Amino acid sequence: MPIITLTSDYGNLDHRVSAIKGSILQLNPDARIIDITHEIGAYNLIQTAYILRNAYAHFPKESVHIVSVDSFFHKDRKNLLVKMDGHYFITADNGLMSLTFFDQKPEAIYEITINNRFDDEVKFASVDIFVPVAAHLTKGGLPELIGRKIKEYKCTTFAKPYFNEPEKMLIGEVMYIDNFGNCVTNISKLIFDKTMVNFNNFEINIRNILLKNINRKYTDIVTDWEKENEYHGKASALFNGQDLLEITIYKGTKNNGANSLFGLKVGDKVYIQFE
Amino acid sequence: MPIITLTSDYGNLDHRVSAIKGSILQLNPDARIIDITHEIGAYNLIQTAYILRNAYAHFPKESVHIVSVDSFFHKDRKNLLVKMDGHYFITADNGLMSLTFFDQKPEAIYEITINNRFDDEVKFASVDIFVPVAAHLTKGGLPELIGRKIKEYKCTTFAKPYFNEPEKMLIGEVMYIDNFGNCVTNISKLIFDKTMVNFNNFEINIRNILLKNINRKYTDIVTDWEKENEYHGKASALFNGQDLLEITIYKGTKNNGANSLFGLKVGDKVYIQFE
Amino acid sequence: MPIITLTSDYGNLDHRVSAIKGSILQLNPDARIIDITHEIGAYNLIQTAYILRNAYAHFPKESVHIVSVDSFFHKDRKNLLVKMDGHYFITADNGLMSLTFFDQKPEAIYEITINNRFDDEVKFASVDIFVPVAAHLTKGGLPELIGRKIKEYKCTTFAKPYFNEPEKMLIGEVMYIDNFGNCVTNISKLIFDKTMVNFNNFEINIRNILLKNINRKYTDIVTDWEKENEYHGKASALFNGQDLLEITIYKGTKNNGANSLFGLKVGDKVYIQFE
Repeated sequence: MPIITLTSDYGNLDHRVSAIKGSILQLNPDARIIDITHEIGAYNLIQTAYILRNAYAHFPKESVHIVSVDSFFHKDRKNLLVKMDGHYFITADNGLMSLTFFDQKPEAIYEITINNRFDDEVKFASVDIFVPVAAHLTKGGLPELIGRKIKEYKCTTFAKPYFNEPEKMLIGEVMYIDNFGNCVTNISKLIFDKTMVNFNNFEINIRNILLKNINRKYTDIVTDWEKENEYHGKASALFNGQDLLEITIYKGTKNNGANSLFGLKVGDKVYIQFE
Repeated sequence: MPIITLTSDYGNLDHRVSAIKGSILQLNPDARIIDITHEIGAYNLIQTAYILRNAYAHFPKESVHIVSVDSFFHKDRKNLLVKMDGHYFITADNGLMSLTFFDQKPEAIYEITINNRFDDEVKFASVDIFVPVAAHLTKGGLPELIGRKIKEYKCTTFAKPYFNEPEKMLIGEVMYIDNFGNCVTNISKLIFDKTMVNFNNFEINIRNILLKNINRKYTDIVTDWEKENEYHGKASALFNGQDLLEITIYKGTKNNGANSLFGLKVGDKVYIQFE
Repeated sequence: MPIITLTSDYGNLDHRVSAIKGSILQLNPDARIIDITHEIGAYNLIQTAYILRNAYAHFPKESVHIVSVDSFFHKDRKNLLVKMDGHYFITADNGLMSLTFFDQKPEAIYEITINNRFDDEVKFASVDIFVPVAAHLTKGGLPELIGRKIKEYKCTTFAKPYFNEPEKMLIGEVMYIDNFGNCVTNISKLIFDKTMVNFNNFEINIRNILLKNINRKYTDIVTDWEKENEYHGKASALFNGQDLLEITIYKGTKNNGANSLFGLKVGDKVYIQFE
């Protein structure tokens, strides 16, 4: 049961996503096709990296992940097949792999070369290049047959949290806002714990609201489940499933969650004061 | 061909839905996964109940339905496996089953216990608890192996229509607005018919527009199909596929349908005057 | 591996789409179900035709395409099974086939008759009529068993570009706006080339912005890939994957693309001046 996942910024109206699916079924009728999402913001690689990182690992090893974000074909930009953590990723060489796997090294990187003989005719890279590669792999084909091994891919970085020594302040920023308005920051539990070793207390300061505790679960703030409804709307901080600091409103919604209540948007700063 | 359906308020952008799908495929590669919807309003159990009720019965018996709405894990709230009408439902014990099946009794209710040994580590109930249960069932496993039989689940109710005797008025309310702006009420054909037995006439009064007829089909108002376009925008009432009274505008749309033309939203009252 | 695709204006919240899928799985558990889209504007047949035309051909021959747009059942309107270009289409006789295949002739047209014996009970044509027909076909059944051959379907047309002789102007219009704000017109490369034969130069005039070149690829305007980011926001014209003239903004988005920058919406005129 070979699996091909799809991630794109194509939206769910245009013909693009179904064109990819139909093309896959032409080349490998046995492929299981799973959508990760098609609602990525146009060309938004940071968002893509966050979602892809949190989604891919739930799939079986050897799954093939097609990522059609910022993938318009240009003869001067490579297309890649990357083997990473036992999975295959097919993407343009746009920096996405370095954003997604900022802490991991690839097992192998291939520049896809099957399109070399028809570069002038490529109108839709996902269908013309990515799908044949995915079909090839899911039918047991070797990566070497569709490209040539290379040493590196384009590297870009996203904002990392940093520690302001004189102020004793860890400064991060919001990197993702989810469907419930929860604000995920770039501050990992690892970095927080490392910093905390040298201090006794901390305080998260967001627009004058102070949070002095970081929970392990979304529902940890509900200390008495019988009175669960009294907690609706309460702010809290937690390390989420990805071990990233998340600012949440209990039972918040996209339009009435931590994002709107704290006035937070992607890129806004979050400060943790230590002492 | 074991079927697992998914219903959630996760939206289609976040990684959550694909994390569930990948996890299912890890545990049961043969499962057919079908989305019911992921666009439920955050924590909206009434909306979930309406959609689930109208969707599930179209699937084959023995299908497994995972419902991830208001399902954040808390050690003091049960998770359930419910057998109902030949189908399996996996959900938190949040009242959803009583809302969906207000007129049916379950064949069996199990409290899921597989998580008991790792309660502290549950970060994402859908993946950590619901998926293993669904995989177990679709591979032919017995419910008894993942939980213990219990007698009841949490019961909540939604607004029911009532008959105002002195006013001779049946009073219901809008419970769902569909993609075309049609307003589905909680007044069933059964209740209407029972009331009508004692009267000769009726009149549906919505914001001063009177409807004196209830159709059986959406297109019943088009008495001459050759002139179909003359009926666009006409209001009518009908008993829909679920035998619930629905207020519609012929060829209305989400932004220009019965909801906007009558100024109706979920919870608004609808009055039927009898005489 | 029989394939059934679904196209509708039902949206992804209501129970309708999953009701169709469940019903298919009841009748043919082996069917592969692929969504083309469910986000068609309510009753919008022009949009449906554009998307369907660009999607269907990517699927294997013999695929069955259910199109549930403007398909409410009325006893005085036929439902059709159309064989076209090796594919099967199931749709109400609403003109869609003539819009989608304005340049092709059907191999066969059948009026679906299986519903004749229960016309009064049809509440949801997609589930009650379209799905049984699709299941029948994908299990190898003959079209003749579910309907009777007829000679034609309802024909409607959409706006075609025309050449204004005295003004030497080819006048077309925007027929579709995609997820990136790109504006697809009804001017095909074929018509443009035919006209161009008699002239030396041309100029596309959209709201006082002049484009004197039509590219073959979206990225053709990027002549130096090293400086790719300098091209963001640049306007250009190209013949898209469907060989239709498209007005684009490089790396535009739905809310900040060619549509908003040029103030274009579906139906707006686009002028090409020849000389």
